[in-house]
Amino acid sequence: MSLVLNREELSDYMHQIFPQVHRDFVVEDLTEDKITMRLVVEDRHLRPGGTVSGPSMFGLADVCVYAIILARKGRQSLAVTTGCSMDFMRKPDGARDMIAHCTLLKLGKTLAVGDVLMFSEGSDKPVARATMTYSLPPEGSAAAAFG
Amino acid sequence: MSLVLNREELSDYMHQIFPQVHRDFVVEDLTEDKITMRLVVEDRHLRPGGTVSGPSMFGLADVCVYAIILARKGRQSLAVTTGCSMDFMRKPDGARDMIAHCTLLKLGKTLAVGDVLMFSEGSDKPVARATMTYSLPPEGSAAAAFG
Amino acid sequence: MSLVLNREELSDYMHQIFPQVHRDFVVEDLTEDKITMRLVVEDRHLRPGGTVSGPSMFGLADVCVYAIILARKGRQSLAVTTGCSMDFMRKPDGARDMIAHCTLLKLGKTLAVGDVLMFSEGSDKPVARATMTYSLPPEGSAAAAFG
Amino acid sequence: MSLVLNREELSDYMHQIFPQVHRDFVVEDLTEDKITMRLVVEDRHLRPGGTVSGPSMFGLADVCVYAIILARKGRQSLAVTTGCSMDFMRKPDGARDMIAHCTLLKLGKTLAVGDVLMFSEGSDKPVARATMTYSLPPEGSAAAAFG
Repeated sequence: MSLVLNREELSDYMHQIFPQVHRDFVVEDLTEDKITMRLVVEDRHLRPGGTVSGPSMFGLADVCVYAIILARKGRQSLAVTTGCSMDFMRKPDGARDMIAHCTLLKLGKTLAVGDVLMFSEGSDKPVARATMTYSLPPEGSAAAAFG
Repeated sequence: MSLVLNREELSDYMHQIFPQVHRDFVVEDLTEDKITMRLVVEDRHLRPGGTVSGPSMFGLADVCVYAIILARKGRQSLAVTTGCSMDFMRKPDGARDMIAHCTLLKLGKTLAVGDVLMFSEGSDKPVARATMTYSLPPEGSAAAAFG
Repeated sequence: MSLVLNREELSDYMHQIFPQVHRDFVVEDLTEDKITMRLVVEDRHLRPGGTVSGPSMFGLADVCVYAIILARKGRQSLAVTTGCSMDFMRKPDGARDMIAHCTLLKLGKTLAVGDVLMFSEGSDKPVARATMTYSLPPEGSAAAAFG
Repeated sequence: MSLVLNREELSDYMHQIFPQVHRDFVVEDLTEDKITMRLVVEDRHLRPGGTVSGPSMFGLADVCVYAIILARKGRQSLAVTTGCSMDFMRKPDGARDMIAHCTLLKLGKTLAVGDVLMFSEGSDKPVARATMTYSLPPEGSAAAAFG
């Protein structure tokens, strides 16, 4: 139940494996079962109307849960996203970064579940929530390969 | 942003409107945006294998969010469940009550969203999570009538 | 990709393993990737207002997908429900049975996904939809045990 | 229950309102309650490993349901995405376009629900499924504004 990668190691590793998007995401805080992630909002994350797009929020939630699984399981982890549910509750502010607070609810042998609450920075009203589920490959196997 | 019904008033009202099941559910705690509810587990809530059934956990989550909407909107409220997502993460203990901790994430004019974490009493590992969404009738209208 | 149990064998086996509820559910039709199930609506399935309750619809969706997994994998199958999403779209008619049409979208080694559309008998407007996900135990192991 | 915009009118209007992404999406077919949409897969839709990314599939599902609501309600429609659930079932082929088949399950006064099945072109095994829900503004009002 302890971290295999600390915040710096996790950040470095994410930059290696996601070179195209590593500037988008900043790990702000990390504990054994919680991670806080910043989405540095740029024009490409916006949709008509100037709010943060749904795909950008999906991506933020997915990266949060994937990152905390990495921090717990280590660099060889090959978790595959198998499901998500999201609720969009308020209009995100396109002029502010988004801050996601994620709780890892379960990290089993073959299944992981994480919950994410997303805010526009400076507000305490959640913009969106997400739950992401992941299939984890059995120990020693090559990949989860979508179960 | 304050409660229209306190814990006792809410409990009394739930007993009126749900006479068949009022013994199943006990409001343990209530604040403006959180409610804790106990499911008094009886044989009829179990499934083969002696664990609490999925429909019983669905019912617990639904009652939680419905109850906190009642507490905030008052007795005339006519919220209608429009959606749910649930993740089942651990086997519930059929010999123990279930305790649900619910947070009301949004209470808008026409849409409410609540998150629920469910535990077997005495454990801090969540058995299941749920998000329930509700359609609220416009002020002065008769019912939400499924949007 | 063929059925291990036909409709009669599946019905018989469900009656053995779900003795309390076997009268509630009738397998109306079964093919390799589709099953049609009837919920014989009784008073205990209703909620105040005389419509079919949410937990009853959850139970119907869960039984559908569990049953088609049984039909494909055989009696030793030990699938465990890990997730569901549901949308409630119209008021079910409490005076009519419910008919559920289920499609098995995936039956992998460790993960199964099924979609369910539910109707009040005689209507072509869907009352609710559900997607249920299941964890399947690895071949030869005792149980999925919630991943 | 008829279309306000036909396929050509819908395509033209989408190009106006989504100038940045109009080349990504092609309306392949449109009826009163079904739409088929192509995602023209380019490098920017891929994730490490060469498969189509989760955010791209979220975007495809969202565009499908939004588009059929536009076709039914007309250009002044201001639907707001309020929820989604998705299941990722197989690895998409990054070298092929994705084809999404969407069914509009409900188009009420204030709530719309659409189901989407997504395939890599040429395969009949679904890569992912999604359900998207939308809040619709009351007739004559300016916007749904997140309920």
